[in-house]
Amino acid sequence: MTPVPETICAIATAPGGALGIIRISGEKSLEILSRIFSKDLTKVKPNTIHYGHIIDKTSNLKPQTSNLIDEVMVSIFRAPHSYTGEDSAEISCHGSRYILQRVVDTLCQQGCRMAEPGEFTQRAFLNGKMDLSQAEAVADLIASENSSQHRLALSQLRGGITTRLQELRDQLLHLTSLLELELDFSDQDVEFADRTELFSLIQSLDDHISTLVRSFSEGNAIREGIPVAILGAPNVGKSTLLNALLGDDRAIVSDIQGTTRDTVEDTITIGGRLFRFIDTAGLRQTDDTVEQMGIERSLRAAERARIVLLVAEPGVPYPDFSPRDDQQVIRILNKSEHFQAINGLGLDELRAQLLHAVSDSHSSTVISNARHKAALSLALDDLRRASEALHQGVPTDLASEDLRLCLQHLGEITGGTITSEETLHNIFKHFCVGK
Amino acid sequence: MTPVPETICAIATAPGGALGIIRISGEKSLEILSRIFSKDLTKVKPNTIHYGHIIDKTSNLKPQTSNLIDEVMVSIFRAPHSYTGEDSAEISCHGSRYILQRVVDTLCQQGCRMAEPGEFTQRAFLNGKMDLSQAEAVADLIASENSSQHRLALSQLRGGITTRLQELRDQLLHLTSLLELELDFSDQDVEFADRTELFSLIQSLDDHISTLVRSFSEGNAIREGIPVAILGAPNVGKSTLLNALLGDDRAIVSDIQGTTRDTVEDTITIGGRLFRFIDTAGLRQTDDTVEQMGIERSLRAAERARIVLLVAEPGVPYPDFSPRDDQQVIRILNKSEHFQAINGLGLDELRAQLLHAVSDSHSSTVISNARHKAALSLALDDLRRASEALHQGVPTDLASEDLRLCLQHLGEITGGTITSEETLHNIFKHFCVGK
Repeated sequence: MTPVPETICAIATAPGGALGIIRISGEKSLEILSRIFSKDLTKVKPNTIHYGHIIDKTSNLKPQTSNLIDEVMVSIFRAPHSYTGEDSAEISCHGSRYILQRVVDTLCQQGCRMAEPGEFTQRAFLNGKMDLSQAEAVADLIASENSSQHRLALSQLRGGITTRLQELRDQLLHLTSLLELELDFSDQDVEFADRTELFSLIQSLDDHISTLVRSFSEGNAIREGIPVAILGAPNVGKSTLLNALLGDDRAIVSDIQGTTRDTVEDTITIGGRLFRFIDTAGLRQTDDTVEQMGIERSLRAAERARIVLLVAEPGVPYPDFSPRDDQQVIRILNKSEHFQAINGLGLDELRAQLLHAVSDSHSSTVISNARHKAALSLALDDLRRASEALHQGVPTDLASEDLRLCLQHLGEITGGTITSEETLHNIFKHFCVGK
Repeated sequence: MTPVPETICAIATAPGGALGIIRISGEKSLEILSRIFSKDLTKVKPNTIHYGHIIDKTSNLKPQTSNLIDEVMVSIFRAPHSYTGEDSAEISCHGSRYILQRVVDTLCQQGCRMAEPGEFTQRAFLNGKMDLSQAEAVADLIASENSSQHRLALSQLRGGITTRLQELRDQLLHLTSLLELELDFSDQDVEFADRTELFSLIQSLDDHISTLVRSFSEGNAIREGIPVAILGAPNVGKSTLLNALLGDDRAIVSDIQGTTRDTVEDTITIGGRLFRFIDTAGLRQTDDTVEQMGIERSLRAAERARIVLLVAEPGVPYPDFSPRDDQQVIRILNKSEHFQAINGLGLDELRAQLLHAVSDSHSSTVISNARHKAALSLALDDLRRASEALHQGVPTDLASEDLRLCLQHLGEITGGTITSEETLHNIFKHFCVGK
């Protein structure tokens, strides 16, 4: 028998605002809340709001005013039509940390337990209100700081990846059912499944999963910023360019000092997309060992970048750089008629070029979560092992077992298959309390 | 004709929580909100909650997901049964600063205006939902950090001072009506008002207003901390005592470095009351000019204190200090059998003594607002001028005029009399936005 989950509570807003919200969820929510509220809430209609007083029941002997903690508005939700799927309530208090803490203390004295980080969303998952990837999207949505991150999280919350995975699962199930039919008659040495259809199905699945795995670099770029390295000879104006790019939107600039002292990283949002610019040491032939090390670091930064800005100036050539297939290069002739970093000339054009360089990278579904990438990579390994086995003509049941593993790994992303306590804990521990 | 107030909106929670709340208030609240919400809210019942989507109407041409800003819960309130007394709504979003800002931007594009600090509470005042002293109590309540501040603000919010002022007003009105009756018949040189009754009424009013004015030091002590000076010869353990007192509750200690380098101030809550300890330079006879200056500062700090801790140790006598009538002195023999600051011996007893020293200072009504104190002081001046005039037998209409001024000054506290735009602005500009 599953024990009845405890009723939990937590402050769901950050300290310091005009309002503060306390969330309660669990079977006894309305019963516990009614004990400290000026009105019985156990019989009220769902989705209604009630004005009243929160009373500290433990200080009955003190004068009347000290019993009163706050005048509040309480919102009532009932299972299953609530965020968690349980009976729940939200108390809207005056936003004093002292008041919020006292309300939580009083709730706990009456039988609530303080919620763990992410426990409300975890319950929503356990009660079937959302799958695991959607639950993770909630945390991403709360953390989103620009339109790309926001769009990515919202698309995941609304089941973007879930739908894609469902399609893959359906194809895989079709594949395994074909194979397992064969298995049932294995003593008769028949081959029901058309091998050509099988391999084309496997290839299609491989393509789709590979695309999702690759989309992680896109998803990661959305979360962490699209890496852009600035390369060029010394003194052509690389740092001036960095400052010019960052200058017009300082508010959401963050400083990330690299492990190497010579490369400075800074992020900025352009046209709703987050770019991470990496300013590097100037490139030149040198016998100085230390400078040579700095230059090597610059080249390594350029290797990791998705876009490389090559900077030159009249009389100083562009650096020698051979981009990879998936890298884009933008050439900037600084201190020229069309571009002057120092006074912003040509910057708008450069920003447009940067946006254009990443415009085609919007896949229909993008994954941004390392856990999802790991599961997809494992699923791809399983699929390829199965394909290998079938090609080599080893017994069908081995391939079938690999495909079942593949299904399981895909299922871990949405939590459709059984999810371990540990996995759940790892996912929800990064949430804020109150969500 | 009074223009219809604009519909205002603001983020009412601090950034960084799981949830974020946006408030809207004004005649067009529900109309504007309905334009960006997935459901028509203009006809729904008051005090109900509605799940839906906030849509960015300005990005109609973009793909579907980018129109969607967030999945939200909306709470609907209707005039006059709302905080402001106007039609209003609260949108509960995912607590991302980006999302909250986009919702506010979208509301503004649809006809809302960003609210000024305190504008919601100002509207509550203007619509007769609360008086001015209650509105001020809202700001105090949000800022409250311990039980004394909380109790003080809550008592004011619940009309504590309003009730007292109403009693004073009634007495004053009685007084002026007696005098004005006389005035109507002044050409006949009659004295309707019984002078003895008049003066006893004035004396009673004087007592009551004086008590309220004096209660400001109590109210101020609750807000800023009860000042406690630590005095003693050098090296008897004054700083050790300060550290010992602060040590057990570091979390809510704040450092206030005085203008004088030698006195260090720190606040701490003991038994729900805020104390502000002032550590001072050691007192001794000295020819050193600089040290002498430090000692003078110590004595000035002691003068401002409500409680003075005199510290001695075996062999070193207590300092010479003559307390005022309203000051309390606690003597501590440090490094003795009963008290050792260094290892906490006797600290609990000292805390009890500190609490006891302020236990009788809880007046029934306490004012904590400098604006209220100023208005009460002016009212007291008016009253005393009137009394003086009556005693000196100057024409009754002068005394009557002073009493009318007195009424007006009292009225300014609750805003019952006409309140100037400037006064309102000064009061509400210190509020947080969204309240």
